Amino acid sequence: MARIVVALGGNALQANPKDTSAEAQLVTCHETSKAIVDLIEDGHEVIIAHGNGPQVGQFVATYETANAANEGIPVMPFPECGAMSQGYIGYHLQQAIREEMRERKINKEVAAIVTQVVVDENDPGFKNPTKPVGSFFTEEQAKKLMAEKGYTMKEDAGRGWRRVVASPMPKAVVEEVIVKTLVEAGHVVITVGGGGVPVIEKNGKLEGVPAVIDKDLASERIAELLNADELVILTAVEQIAINFNKPDQKNLKDLSVAEAYKYIEEGHFAPGSMLPKVKAALMFAESKPGRKAIVTSLERAREALKGLTGTIIAQ
Amino acid sequence: MARIVVALGGNALQANPKDTSAEAQLVTCHETSKAIVDLIEDGHEVIIAHGNGPQVGQFVATYETANAANEGIPVMPFPECGAMSQGYIGYHLQQAIREEMRERKINKEVAAIVTQVVVDENDPGFKNPTKPVGSFFTEEQAKKLMAEKGYTMKEDAGRGWRRVVASPMPKAVVEEVIVKTLVEAGHVVITVGGGGVPVIEKNGKLEGVPAVIDKDLASERIAELLNADELVILTAVEQIAINFNKPDQKNLKDLSVAEAYKYIEEGHFAPGSMLPKVKAALMFAESKPGRKAIVTSLERAREALKGLTGTIIAQ
Repeated sequence: MARIVVALGGNALQANPKDTSAEAQLVTCHETSKAIVDLIEDGHEVIIAHGNGPQVGQFVATYETANAANEGIPVMPFPECGAMSQGYIGYHLQQAIREEMRERKINKEVAAIVTQVVVDENDPGFKNPTKPVGSFFTEEQAKKLMAEKGYTMKEDAGRGWRRVVASPMPKAVVEEVIVKTLVEAGHVVITVGGGGVPVIEKNGKLEGVPAVIDKDLASERIAELLNADELVILTAVEQIAINFNKPDQKNLKDLSVAEAYKYIEEGHFAPGSMLPKVKAALMFAESKPGRKAIVTSLERAREALKGLTGTIIAQ
Repeated sequence: MARIVVALGGNALQANPKDTSAEAQLVTCHETSKAIVDLIEDGHEVIIAHGNGPQVGQFVATYETANAANEGIPVMPFPECGAMSQGYIGYHLQQAIREEMRERKINKEVAAIVTQVVVDENDPGFKNPTKPVGSFFTEEQAKKLMAEKGYTMKEDAGRGWRRVVASPMPKAVVEEVIVKTLVEAGHVVITVGGGGVPVIEKNGKLEGVPAVIDKDLASERIAELLNADELVILTAVEQIAINFNKPDQKNLKDLSVAEAYKYIEEGHFAPGSMLPKVKAALMFAESKPGRKAIVTSLERAREALKGLTGTIIAQ
């Protein structure tokens, strides 16, 4: 029996990028819950973290569209959109996981916790925001938004202008003790949704900031704080590979910290895709002897935890 | 020291109905938190429930406006809007309450729990939905929505057509054990936001339904489940009155269950305003000997709990 933080990727929440409706998301969450409850059934203590990229993007676009049509509808600030996504996705996941547990006669409770994650206001990410969010605008509209709202906006590969926000490192989880209390009481907890609502600490006060915290890094953070045994990062592939998509692609069963650094150096992992996952996995594996990170697909999570597949990153 | 469920009304979240922005709501939540933390400082175990009427109304109107401008933006279903409002309001309240506690050196934790509340699918409310939500439509648009989406829509006093949803009785709180675990560990919990996300139970499975559960009744339900000592219903006035707004208005310090029934019969309490609060208070006072309900204003909550003001409803 291990304490496990499972980081769910976007495709575990929205299987079909063409159908971004809540109805479709709920169906996908039911599928996802089967793999999650497999781990609970195997006796593990499971904490679930999840992304929110498509959902928050949709919220932002919805508010921008509604505000353009009717100025009386105020645009929702970015941190609040993150909190809303935790309610939205948390509701779907907790309903689906509970149903799957009840079908298997597992008598545990599950709940989503609205979770704030502290970032450093001096994080270099704030000086050069790079994460695009929301709709495309014309240059004229973009200049107006930058002047009126203080947004940072960038031209996006000829497709128009988009708002960009920072992607700072997670430092602390404000609701850490709440999560710990529930985990230690044997409950299943959904937390740091979308990487957490990003807040900075100013004179001991928390303040929401427009930023996107990488959900794998936030998962790594909460995994350390909860003294988890394993961090399971779920993605589209069963194993990490070197020479990915080349004739000599080689899938990795075990990846030592030293090898991981070497492969990163050699450019084997795509930035914005496998690279941040490997980095989060590495960070966890290095944080304390005995801790290991597993990168695998949702479908293979159960087998991977039994050591049968996936890539295990350990010291 | 008592265990107290505090039901916050809409004006504790949005003080100025003309400024419905998130920024204004956060300022109001900081003010509200002072009164809440007074109770925590006095040694009480506090569980917070809150309404979400204006917020969910705004979400629905935002989606309707965005969808009208761009059909590619799917309309968010009603239960999901409720879950989003729990994330949105919960984030503001937990941030503000935490800050107020830290300023007073109170070392407790606080978190909002995404909370589902079970209603009976045969509740008479579903046969005759009466609670209006969202924007006004023309008769033609309304007929299209009724045909396409199965909405119930009603003409609203010459102002146009609006969607109406049911207002069923709360039966059970799905996350009851989660809330209990946190309360017993000494944490401050925000739950049943907006009366809870309404779900029905079908063959053991939960399913979200378009409905609004009265937040005072949901607060009463969770107060019973948590075996609370007191249910504090906050409203715009300091005390319940008979002959309200008449020359012979009489404010009530104590209200027995028998008197409450008599005054209800005599029509002293306005439906949709004081009446549902008196009914929720009565239900709690009658549920077990020793339990009492207090109806007062946010500003007077601390004094009311000391027996100095407010209206106390007890057996």
